[in-house]
Amino acid sequence: MTETEQIPTAILGAGGYIGQHFARLLSDHPRFGPPLLVGGERSGGQRLEDLWLISDEAPPDLARERLARRTPAQLRRSGVQVVFGAMPSGPAGGVESECRRQGLHVFSNAADHRMDPDVPLLVPEVNHDHLDALVTRGRRRALLVTNPNCTTTGLVLALAPVWAMLGPRAVHVASYQALSGAGYPGVASLAIHDNVVPFIPKEEEKVDAEANRILGAVSRGRVVPSGTPFLAHCARVAVRDGHLVAVTVEATRRPGRAALEEAWRSFDPLRSMDLPTAPHPPVELRSQPDRPQPYRDLWAGHPARARGMAAVVGRVRWEPPYLRFFVLSHNAVRGGAGGSVLNAELALAAGLLDTPGGRRR
Amino acid sequence: MTETEQIPTAILGAGGYIGQHFARLLSDHPRFGPPLLVGGERSGGQRLEDLWLISDEAPPDLARERLARRTPAQLRRSGVQVVFGAMPSGPAGGVESECRRQGLHVFSNAADHRMDPDVPLLVPEVNHDHLDALVTRGRRRALLVTNPNCTTTGLVLALAPVWAMLGPRAVHVASYQALSGAGYPGVASLAIHDNVVPFIPKEEEKVDAEANRILGAVSRGRVVPSGTPFLAHCARVAVRDGHLVAVTVEATRRPGRAALEEAWRSFDPLRSMDLPTAPHPPVELRSQPDRPQPYRDLWAGHPARARGMAAVVGRVRWEPPYLRFFVLSHNAVRGGAGGSVLNAELALAAGLLDTPGGRRR
Amino acid sequence: MTETEQIPTAILGAGGYIGQHFARLLSDHPRFGPPLLVGGERSGGQRLEDLWLISDEAPPDLARERLARRTPAQLRRSGVQVVFGAMPSGPAGGVESECRRQGLHVFSNAADHRMDPDVPLLVPEVNHDHLDALVTRGRRRALLVTNPNCTTTGLVLALAPVWAMLGPRAVHVASYQALSGAGYPGVASLAIHDNVVPFIPKEEEKVDAEANRILGAVSRGRVVPSGTPFLAHCARVAVRDGHLVAVTVEATRRPGRAALEEAWRSFDPLRSMDLPTAPHPPVELRSQPDRPQPYRDLWAGHPARARGMAAVVGRVRWEPPYLRFFVLSHNAVRGGAGGSVLNAELALAAGLLDTPGGRRR
Amino acid sequence: MTETEQIPTAILGAGGYIGQHFARLLSDHPRFGPPLLVGGERSGGQRLEDLWLISDEAPPDLARERLARRTPAQLRRSGVQVVFGAMPSGPAGGVESECRRQGLHVFSNAADHRMDPDVPLLVPEVNHDHLDALVTRGRRRALLVTNPNCTTTGLVLALAPVWAMLGPRAVHVASYQALSGAGYPGVASLAIHDNVVPFIPKEEEKVDAEANRILGAVSRGRVVPSGTPFLAHCARVAVRDGHLVAVTVEATRRPGRAALEEAWRSFDPLRSMDLPTAPHPPVELRSQPDRPQPYRDLWAGHPARARGMAAVVGRVRWEPPYLRFFVLSHNAVRGGAGGSVLNAELALAAGLLDTPGGRRR
Repeated sequence: MTETEQIPTAILGAGGYIGQHFARLLSDHPRFGPPLLVGGERSGGQRLEDLWLISDEAPPDLARERLARRTPAQLRRSGVQVVFGAMPSGPAGGVESECRRQGLHVFSNAADHRMDPDVPLLVPEVNHDHLDALVTRGRRRALLVTNPNCTTTGLVLALAPVWAMLGPRAVHVASYQALSGAGYPGVASLAIHDNVVPFIPKEEEKVDAEANRILGAVSRGRVVPSGTPFLAHCARVAVRDGHLVAVTVEATRRPGRAALEEAWRSFDPLRSMDLPTAPHPPVELRSQPDRPQPYRDLWAGHPARARGMAAVVGRVRWEPPYLRFFVLSHNAVRGGAGGSVLNAELALAAGLLDTPGGRRR
Repeated sequence: MTETEQIPTAILGAGGYIGQHFARLLSDHPRFGPPLLVGGERSGGQRLEDLWLISDEAPPDLARERLARRTPAQLRRSGVQVVFGAMPSGPAGGVESECRRQGLHVFSNAADHRMDPDVPLLVPEVNHDHLDALVTRGRRRALLVTNPNCTTTGLVLALAPVWAMLGPRAVHVASYQALSGAGYPGVASLAIHDNVVPFIPKEEEKVDAEANRILGAVSRGRVVPSGTPFLAHCARVAVRDGHLVAVTVEATRRPGRAALEEAWRSFDPLRSMDLPTAPHPPVELRSQPDRPQPYRDLWAGHPARARGMAAVVGRVRWEPPYLRFFVLSHNAVRGGAGGSVLNAELALAAGLLDTPGGRRR
Repeated sequence: MTETEQIPTAILGAGGYIGQHFARLLSDHPRFGPPLLVGGERSGGQRLEDLWLISDEAPPDLARERLARRTPAQLRRSGVQVVFGAMPSGPAGGVESECRRQGLHVFSNAADHRMDPDVPLLVPEVNHDHLDALVTRGRRRALLVTNPNCTTTGLVLALAPVWAMLGPRAVHVASYQALSGAGYPGVASLAIHDNVVPFIPKEEEKVDAEANRILGAVSRGRVVPSGTPFLAHCARVAVRDGHLVAVTVEATRRPGRAALEEAWRSFDPLRSMDLPTAPHPPVELRSQPDRPQPYRDLWAGHPARARGMAAVVGRVRWEPPYLRFFVLSHNAVRGGAGGSVLNAELALAAGLLDTPGGRRR
Repeated sequence: MTETEQIPTAILGAGGYIGQHFARLLSDHPRFGPPLLVGGERSGGQRLEDLWLISDEAPPDLARERLARRTPAQLRRSGVQVVFGAMPSGPAGGVESECRRQGLHVFSNAADHRMDPDVPLLVPEVNHDHLDALVTRGRRRALLVTNPNCTTTGLVLALAPVWAMLGPRAVHVASYQALSGAGYPGVASLAIHDNVVPFIPKEEEKVDAEANRILGAVSRGRVVPSGTPFLAHCARVAVRDGHLVAVTVEATRRPGRAALEEAWRSFDPLRSMDLPTAPHPPVELRSQPDRPQPYRDLWAGHPARARGMAAVVGRVRWEPPYLRFFVLSHNAVRGGAGGSVLNAELALAAGLLDTPGGRRR
């Protein structure tokens, strides 16, 4: 494969909010080709620009494309090798399995396969070792890689740099989740306007299970969850984008505050890899007294292609044994489409896309 | 004093958001007379209706009253006996002290005197014993009674019924606080629109200190704080009224879930007292999966005069040793003006308004 | 019929936003009995309190009622005489016709029959003569009376007092319409959050047609529309309740400003009738420079039962030939359920409910 | 002057919302140098990034700059040649006059000098002839050029292409103006949350006077206003950025609809000039039924440097003699900082910055 050759891709559920962010990120990607836009009953046949919900304009090369209805077999026949999954959890599960059976590599946002023993649940800066460990076993199959739910992503990014130093006994979490986390049409305006809804179905359980899996160790090709209880409260607030999370870690160890800050600031495990969508640094530490804020910190992340990919940590209060802070991440970028794209970039760099689905012919 | 005799009152800071709620609650109160409206530089001379910020119309008997500028001595001379304090913390402190020196009973929302050893910090359903205990010592002085900050009020109401059963080791708190908690003009729209601001100056420290004091025991005329750490995250959300709080109690005891629910449902320590603004029950327990919500549960409280005075608890999750729930209360009513009015009703019922300031002539 | 006898009623579409306002208004109505709550596929079988979307609590006598699925014939058999229609336009049309065939009097919010020649489109303060005129002809049938769309209601209330004085050549209208005007779930939060949507299907045409009909004269049992062009722009804004309308009248006559204000202030054509839900005055004129506002003026209307029934006019600018002003009305009360209830009270007072459907037995 | 030479600039009021947009636009401008950031009492000494209110990150080259307090004479001495004015109207007037006396060219957003007979009130696509006409007379002085208020800018851009074809008798306008139009802190959240405020001081008068001046003809070095009445209603809505305007033109002529659309689509009078911030086309016509919308159309404008500089027209309804449409423009970009920058680019291209203040040495 030469530098300039691009891998043919498709987006499942391209008409939805996450799907549109995929289109934005893939429209001029250096390694993945302009995606085939796949829609369902509601969106199939419509132009991307007429469905467009994001403030930035639709990418010019895709704006007038019409969404197509395609089976996994049809995708395979049309040469697609990598599929990005933006369908809602539930319907996504079967379609993604079928894609994989057809030899397509799948990078998915949906919850269906996150707990499958042989499916990596991946946040590259946090547990890239899970990718190799789990994939080795299934080497002859196409890949299926998932990213966690949007609340967990920012949370584990913020925790990873300080996790071992703290030796957490428990983690207390309360979320302030954005509207776009529920997709479109999602939350009715009458339900959330001038309101907070302190319930998001299954979200608290996901935070506990997924954070434990991502922060878990790999042993004999399996992930052993970390075993730390994550006590979560998940609530929806009237903010368009950006999940804010209040975190209290009850620690068993007592590092100095300077050591904690240094751990955050120096954290950049993907530094030496050339992944286009990877933010450097992946965690930005704010010193202002009132940050992070969804509106002001949403698009953190450098270089330009990694806008919205960094997690922003602020309001650090360390009164041992309790460490408190807030973390913000863009739920639809870092916690959604961008997370999957980064996973695919990691898999590509690891040579994992050269197997069945990605075999270069 | 006959049943029909009304005690002359004044509202300090009547033009602000809390001040207006005082006006609403006192305009037709059975025991406290229609208040004299006291304003400062900005509001003095203006009509209440032109300052009015609340959706319910200004009370007809007060709407066209102009706010007056008055010193404590002037209030005393004009016959006022009870003063309700709605001035902002800081300026309030000195004025309230001077009112007291003038023999006026003060029921205050401001933070300045909450930690004074001889000043009750009072939520009647939770710690009415503090009133007698502390006041006995200063019997010959006029009363100064405070209510806690708006976040703490709902929190301690929710905790009180289950506190002893749980034997808390720590309490984790994250708040979703309304705009009106910052008064008017308060928060700039550009700062909070489509945003969450995860910082409210001094609020987290207040939650810890005030909750500990209110839940503390009285010993030899002094309050001994409970000593339980309250680890708080306080954030502002774009909701007009209603502070929602996510609570996780780490318990040392393991009561059954039914016992916890029964404790909440049967809690009504003021049942036998005839306090007009007291809600019965003071804690309402919701069984729907997505409650409490600020918009929908804001005005909980019966009878009609106690609208907005009940705390609403919901989403109870009990996985020992962790009890999780949400609680909502109206920050400007239960956590503000209504709290002070209820404190005054309690003091009146306890005969404490017959001393200097309240001496009937 | 004695004073205390109540007429049996039902609400069609009781689970929706307008339906809930009907429940609120009818729960303790002096003349209409507590309504039977009729729901459809989605809401049938559910309790009113679990569907409740309004900040004021559900009426205690109805809160735990479950919505029933009922045909018009079943309603008739169960003794219902008056039906209040809160179903969405489209489905409503046929059901309302069938109710009428069954001899039930119908007071409807839906658009389907508003332009039927023999159906009064009624705003009692503006065109109560239409009721007698149109109904006379169909005397032996049950009544079907409609109220206009929520934008038109406030508009014609504001225009009626000054209409003849101005001799309008054209009326220019721009609306700022609330979320609740679209019902529940209605507008997706992602569509309207931090946004304005300058399109509401068919609304501009309705304003023109309905305002012309209501302001039209009756001649030989038919309504002759006023013939004045209403040039409307209708837009949705992120406000929960309250339709604000900017109005510019191009006048052919030049009354003095004082005469205009006097016309508004003295307008109260229902003054001498005892209609419980009628506001007195029906138009409130504000002199403050920045009113009316949805949040602050939403609940205008006296006496207490008529809260939310008055239209509020302000920012009057009269530079002949152009009269400019804003008018606000509660879209779900005055422009919805309350409008229908007032229509029914007028019909009752006019003796029109004694015919087939309302025959007293 | 060579291509690469940059003109030294400063921003007056760099800490405010418009000032920050100036910083964003000038940080990498091809012809104007990185600006000196001038602040006042509140912002002087602070870093730009700590004041930053815009979702896009502060420009890296300016983010850590501290705002300086500088007199016009100091600016002159430090070599500044062009000053961009983002101070609020009122204070701005005198400072801008003094800058001009010091020989600095001023491009201002403030209202103070817009009606001065010798000061161009300029929207380049609409009335660039005013620049030459007015400036000729004062050739030996430094330039003072203003742009109109943010509502008028989008309005005249939308009207200019069709103005002569319609021969307007009157123009009816209703605005839906964004929060940022009032600057920071600007509107209190309690005042506008869940609300519309139908009053913006002096705005309606400005729309009438400024639109008339911009659409006026030049005669003997003076502007003769167009004389068409603009009947405006100006209201604030809870949207962060983007002024939407509903427009009804009463026409005296009757072009075909196709001719109107063609006039809009082909409008691009600056096409042949190389102005970096000029959008091509300056008016984008949307055919979707529900556009333009603030959130979705805010950043219209090509090429990339002209993002937010195009006006977006939609919902065109032409029922002679009435033409109705909506127009949206970014109030802080096209209607603010970007408008001034484009004015300066035009003046530079016209050779007008080579006179006193801009004399190249």
